[in-house]
Amino acid sequence: MEIRITKNDAPKQKPDENNLGFGNYFTDHMFVMDYDLEKGWHDPRIEPYGPLSLDPSAMVFHYGQETFEGLKAYRNDQGNIQLFRVMDNLNRLNQSNERMCIPTLDVEAMFQGIKELILLDGDWVPSQPGTSLYVRPFVIATDPFLGVRPASTYKFLVILSPVGAYYKGGLNPTRIYVEEYYVRAVAGGTGFAKTGGNYAASLKAQVEANEKGYNQVLWLDGKEHKYIEEVGTSNAFFKIDGKVYTAPLEGSILSGITRNSTITLLKDWGLEVVEEKMTIQQLAEHHKAGRLEEAFATGTAAVISPIGVLGWQGEDLVINDNQIGEVSQKLYDTMTAIQYGKVEDEFGWVIQL
Amino acid sequence: MEIRITKNDAPKQKPDENNLGFGNYFTDHMFVMDYDLEKGWHDPRIEPYGPLSLDPSAMVFHYGQETFEGLKAYRNDQGNIQLFRVMDNLNRLNQSNERMCIPTLDVEAMFQGIKELILLDGDWVPSQPGTSLYVRPFVIATDPFLGVRPASTYKFLVILSPVGAYYKGGLNPTRIYVEEYYVRAVAGGTGFAKTGGNYAASLKAQVEANEKGYNQVLWLDGKEHKYIEEVGTSNAFFKIDGKVYTAPLEGSILSGITRNSTITLLKDWGLEVVEEKMTIQQLAEHHKAGRLEEAFATGTAAVISPIGVLGWQGEDLVINDNQIGEVSQKLYDTMTAIQYGKVEDEFGWVIQL
Ligand SMILES: Cc1ncc(COP(=O)(O)O)c(C=O)c1O
Ligand SMILES: Cc1ncc(COP(=O)(O)O)c(C=O)c1O
Repeated sequence: MEIRITKNDAPKQKPDENNLGFGNYFTDHMFVMDYDLEKGWHDPRIEPYGPLSLDPSAMVFHYGQETFEGLKAYRNDQGNIQLFRVMDNLNRLNQSNERMCIPTLDVEAMFQGIKELILLDGDWVPSQPGTSLYVRPFVIATDPFLGVRPASTYKFLVILSPVGAYYKGGLNPTRIYVEEYYVRAVAGGTGFAKTGGNYAASLKAQVEANEKGYNQVLWLDGKEHKYIEEVGTSNAFFKIDGKVYTAPLEGSILSGITRNSTITLLKDWGLEVVEEKMTIQQLAEHHKAGRLEEAFATGTAAVISPIGVLGWQGEDLVINDNQIGEVSQKLYDTMTAIQYGKVEDEFGWVIQL
Repeated sequence: MEIRITKNDAPKQKPDENNLGFGNYFTDHMFVMDYDLEKGWHDPRIEPYGPLSLDPSAMVFHYGQETFEGLKAYRNDQGNIQLFRVMDNLNRLNQSNERMCIPTLDVEAMFQGIKELILLDGDWVPSQPGTSLYVRPFVIATDPFLGVRPASTYKFLVILSPVGAYYKGGLNPTRIYVEEYYVRAVAGGTGFAKTGGNYAASLKAQVEANEKGYNQVLWLDGKEHKYIEEVGTSNAFFKIDGKVYTAPLEGSILSGITRNSTITLLKDWGLEVVEEKMTIQQLAEHHKAGRLEEAFATGTAAVISPIGVLGWQGEDLVINDNQIGEVSQKLYDTMTAIQYGKVEDEFGWVIQL
């Protein structure tokens, strides 16, 4: 695949690496491809990062036909750039695309676009500890048309954002509110897809949880409002009596790549991992009986995020004395060590650019 | 409110009124307002219809924080333009906004914007029978930011599209597939809001129903997959043994304005309307016993759309001999007569511009 490159001749000043936050800054270029019925996905190109010009009737503004991914590029100790499990993200984008009736993309073509884009904007990959370059591939429906049907034109883009730690506090235990009213997803819906509507649907619960003094919500299933699903935009894990539990992949939760890495590492360490449904009631009973040893959330943005408190039905269940658990810490340390190339990658997760 | 007007000095050629279709053409101007935390909703203006320029990180492309409405302006027999129940649409937009954490708008301000816009583009309101000007107010989140939280900047726009009949066949009975796997919405979700994600989630079922030879799907509830909810993007009604049944408003279906007009007219005509949950099983039993006299869908786009066939579990239940029912026809005739100003509007539904 030949990628047409138009260089940005007015590069921006780079932000202070110690104060990046998350998702605030974007690099000098972006990767773009277009889709139409005749040509399929075509015209792969790298352009100066800049505004999209879209008809106000563009379907994405009205009917939310959009998908995205999120992964990170890291600067390793040798100064080189490496990607973590990028192929898994690109395959998941296609799973999301299929659910949302968006034409799938060639995984190799997407990878090549991401690679060339990152190499071109390589100076933007930060090197301060804990920083990385967040990579955001996404697809939007662009037909200038009002009416509910799959679009026939799309844009695929990749934009890059140098980021710091996702949570300001770093690896600090979070306060999580168990959401019993609002629902994020249900079987037969789009919960397993990374599509805008799932996130838009989650905002209200998140805002209300923040107002109550919690960082995020724990989602329960949409059917019975009792089975534990996810924490905000991360997967949820619970260490109970030495075993580690997480919700099974049954269509309503995202198949998190950090979830998968976590399970792989835990098993590698000889821990038993149980992917089974668990009710919030059961979890609370384990807590009461002193069996809930650790709880943590997993996701690309924050990697591992220990859960210190679960707010449920007016009570705060404090987990592990509101301290970072041993397994949470070890997962964080191991995963980030692999991501930053500080230890050998036994699992084939890392691709050096 | 002072609306700043920039006239389009390159007006387009108007499309053939006999061949408009739905949502294909847009007029010469659009109404725009911006929101930020400091100024709230501000700078109401009418501009030449043209592309929006948005950062590729604009939140609407990633997290689907977007709401919309759809209503129609009609040219009446005196050549004047009139709107149907516009205030109900604008109030519903604010209900959607609340659910989606979008700052609500002043209803009067929106109305004024719509009115001035339509008057400016008045020549675009078609006059052929069955045609109208579709009005699409919508809100999109515009922050150039990646991360899941409500945006702090938005755009409200109104665009106008001259339209013909929604279904090419006109008031013809449709073939509807009873969808038992995919789900559009669930209690605690966003079903009652007009937000992109609901429509994106519905595409796959619609495509599969089309492939099976049906026009649209009948949605069942997300919890038990048995209660009748909506038909595509319309509300569903069933006349059984002289009474008319429709699903109650419990959060997962849209509170359709045509639904409300239908209920009002039916009651006015002395018919009993029952807003109660009904399972697809019950409906099939009524059909088998010969009690299902008519079925129809209601919505702004098609007004009344008779259902001729319900495809359920491999069988086609034919309703009313696949003919337009008496009540369906009378509803269509009465509603469109009010909309086009051919009869007196006893209900205060019409506003003349
Ligand atoms: C809803 C949801 N769940 C879980 C995750 C975690 O997935 P991953 O580990 O692939 O980042 C994410 C973030 O990507 C998410 O958006
Ligand atoms: C999901 C859904 N249900 C029902 C309707 C019908 O509502 P209304 O009669 O207000 O057009 C619509 C269309 O607006 C819709 O999108």
